[in-house]
Amino acid sequence: MSNSAEIIVGRNSVMEALKSGRSINKVLVAKGERHGSVREIIGLAKSNGLIVQEVEMNKLAELAGGMRHQGIAALAAPVDYVEIEDILAKAAELGEAPFIVLLDELEDPHNLGAILRTADAAGVHGVLIPKRRSCPLSATVAKTSAGAVEYVPVARIGNVAQTIKDLKAAGLWVVGADMDGDKNFYEADLTGPMVVVIGSEGKGLGRLTKEHCDFLVRIPMRGKINSLNASVACSLLLYESLKQREMKAK
Amino acid sequence: MSNSAEIIVGRNSVMEALKSGRSINKVLVAKGERHGSVREIIGLAKSNGLIVQEVEMNKLAELAGGMRHQGIAALAAPVDYVEIEDILAKAAELGEAPFIVLLDELEDPHNLGAILRTADAAGVHGVLIPKRRSCPLSATVAKTSAGAVEYVPVARIGNVAQTIKDLKAAGLWVVGADMDGDKNFYEADLTGPMVVVIGSEGKGLGRLTKEHCDFLVRIPMRGKINSLNASVACSLLLYESLKQREMKAK
Repeated sequence: MSNSAEIIVGRNSVMEALKSGRSINKVLVAKGERHGSVREIIGLAKSNGLIVQEVEMNKLAELAGGMRHQGIAALAAPVDYVEIEDILAKAAELGEAPFIVLLDELEDPHNLGAILRTADAAGVHGVLIPKRRSCPLSATVAKTSAGAVEYVPVARIGNVAQTIKDLKAAGLWVVGADMDGDKNFYEADLTGPMVVVIGSEGKGLGRLTKEHCDFLVRIPMRGKINSLNASVACSLLLYESLKQREMKAK
Repeated sequence: MSNSAEIIVGRNSVMEALKSGRSINKVLVAKGERHGSVREIIGLAKSNGLIVQEVEMNKLAELAGGMRHQGIAALAAPVDYVEIEDILAKAAELGEAPFIVLLDELEDPHNLGAILRTADAAGVHGVLIPKRRSCPLSATVAKTSAGAVEYVPVARIGNVAQTIKDLKAAGLWVVGADMDGDKNFYEADLTGPMVVVIGSEGKGLGRLTKEHCDFLVRIPMRGKINSLNASVACSLLLYESLKQREMKAK
């Protein structure tokens, strides 16, 4: 938040950012701020599908770090988001079966950064993150990704269940990582067009998301702790898939 | 460092901690502090094989957080270190081939914590960390490990090359993770008594360490970034080994 490249403040600047199509994570409005042009900005933000959040005036002033904010600010992503179609097109262009990661309410920017780094290394075509209740692209994510944020396209999605349905309709297999999975991740066929779905750090996959997966795989746990770090779990699945693809190609 | 449970200050307290056998990461002495009892403490610390580091008086005061430090402090580990023999004995007790991780100059406490968490899950018997130039067990490590620090024994070692020689003599295979590895990690036999060696975040394995490994395995990299996070790389090797062990047992 302290990175000035990430925060855009003031009515004109926020309005311009929204009109330019720049990737915005969120619009922040000071409580009680109902000036005409602010209302206009809120309307534009909402029509763009963005989250508009009310914050205390002093919180906004703190984020603005001395810049004149006029009761409104926007948090920008360090790189632009893409659309799901762009990710599918990238796979098609490479002549590869789509290999996509969907993060369901992942909250920790370090985990998102680590996943982007592994996604780049494992040849993933793109990562999907929900607009709500999920960690957006930020300076911390960019730093933890070791630069991978520049190479792995990230698209934001509205409804996770609907997105899974659409991807299934497009011919992709949807595999979720879950403790109650039917088989071990290394015993499942992870080749072919595929979406790997990883849940939140605390709760794992949501019930509805699980129901929409084609199948669930578990990671064997031989110790006393009952879950792995989300980025580690994701990395194991991505590399198992990469391995199976490479073995098959031989 | 701000965790008061981790810092022991004052001549009597540090002396008692050293005599009690409590696991100490490091002894800190204020520059120029040569009081008789401080000299005695330094002597005892060194004879215990501990690192004694000179620091500025104001740095020591800051770490002590208002407590009366008398020019000396000790940084304690959140859990006790064990000896390599304890780790080998644990494997023998379980009737399993020793499965050990050696971290060569890993510096980031978050990586160490994440590795302990995965080590617990993958059934590793213990982790070895050098006394020098490596991240010790700390409150940050404990937190990131999600509790695994309580379950995975950690031993400190002096010389990495000598330790590798000793473990080889004890019948263990030593496998290092390295970009220039002879084969992909999933194409190597990772069953049997084994030490998995992971290098530092920035530089990977040292030349000498590499030379002492029985073999090196690489993790395929299909993207633009040329390395994985150390805890992700370690997790991939540990789970590949676990998988091969389980498949073999079937």
